Amino acid sequence: MTTVGILGGTGPAGRGVAIRLASAGYDVVLGSRDAGRAEKSAAGLRARGSGTLQGAANEGAASCDLVVIATPWDSAVLTVKDLRTQLADKTVISMVNALVREGRELVPLYPPRGSMAAQLAFALPRSTIVGAFHHLPADQMLDLDSGLDGDVVIFSDDDAARQRVADMVDEMPGLRAVIAGSMSLASAVEAFTAVCTSINIRHKVHSYVKLAGLKD
Amino acid sequence: MTTVGILGGTGPAGRGVAIRLASAGYDVVLGSRDAGRAEKSAAGLRARGSGTLQGAANEGAASCDLVVIATPWDSAVLTVKDLRTQLADKTVISMVNALVREGRELVPLYPPRGSMAAQLAFALPRSTIVGAFHHLPADQMLDLDSGLDGDVVIFSDDDAARQRVADMVDEMPGLRAVIAGSMSLASAVEAFTAVCTSINIRHKVHSYVKLAGLKD
Repeated sequence: MTTVGILGGTGPAGRGVAIRLASAGYDVVLGSRDAGRAEKSAAGLRARGSGTLQGAANEGAASCDLVVIATPWDSAVLTVKDLRTQLADKTVISMVNALVREGRELVPLYPPRGSMAAQLAFALPRSTIVGAFHHLPADQMLDLDSGLDGDVVIFSDDDAARQRVADMVDEMPGLRAVIAGSMSLASAVEAFTAVCTSINIRHKVHSYVKLAGLKD
Repeated sequence: MTTVGILGGTGPAGRGVAIRLASAGYDVVLGSRDAGRAEKSAAGLRARGSGTLQGAANEGAASCDLVVIATPWDSAVLTVKDLRTQLADKTVISMVNALVREGRELVPLYPPRGSMAAQLAFALPRSTIVGAFHHLPADQMLDLDSGLDGDVVIFSDDDAARQRVADMVDEMPGLRAVIAGSMSLASAVEAFTAVCTSINIRHKVHSYVKLAGLKD
């Protein structure tokens, strides 16, 4: 079975993806700068299904078949730079959003190349970058009984990698993959997370994107 | 009753908003550079409810109580500049998205001030700008029997104007208002239209945003 590593996987966003990947049968390695913390974090997750969950240093997570970047935005590039060799010739999924708090809102930051996915692509020229998992509410992702029914908007310049990630997402409970297109849409997908989270703060809810009008 | 003018109202997006405003009881004036075309366009719409629909030159639409900007993005600023006086001291709703076709996709353009709403606010310093109606599928808006059930994400730096627009949207059939926050979110809301339309082109659907997890 495919192994999936999650860099910065001990935060709520990474843990949410991890538990649903393991519940879909994947063997998941939560990575952290601190291997002990990752092991503890993985031990605290109870997946359902045949997949496994373990913790490791980020290096261990980076040696999996598929790697998800779930670090805070301002440490994402630094984290992957050290793992360039392990990540070469692999599909690397960015779920990173560059957001900053401004009063009651989270607002989008536009990094020099327009998106965090583009920043990561520049830092990892030998990897294939796919964007996914941006708009998901961490609490509902973590709770397998939350009734989550969300859309994962996916983009990449590589058709095959994009499709592979979409197929994986469709196996995860509570999620539907929607391929949007190329990296030209990266900034728009990432920035919309600011809209969802600002709505959540303002209305005291956990909203997420479910596109209406798609064929099932 | 409040009158609502729609500048550039003869395009599919403007007409879709017009028919649902009239169906909510508003008196709507479709504006166009060509008054004759606007009259013809208005005559072709059949609203349900007590509101009225008529066509006029953009000047006529701009003298309504509330004004919606529905022109193509590249003529929006030019159009409102000539109507600065009529639009002063009014709430002006921008539904404008700056998008360009790139192969099979529509991708977002970021104007110098980050969003079209900010460009319009700069061009109309005496008006109050509210962003709304960005992600709606024109065909389903126009067909009152389409079963449309979409969210209108609203932003503005003016709390009262934002709330007024939200109240109006909630009266329109098939739409729910969701106040996201300030103009800091304008680029993110506008650019996401590129994601919806690119998904529509790729998957041959008419998708739109419906946020899950909100309280009713």
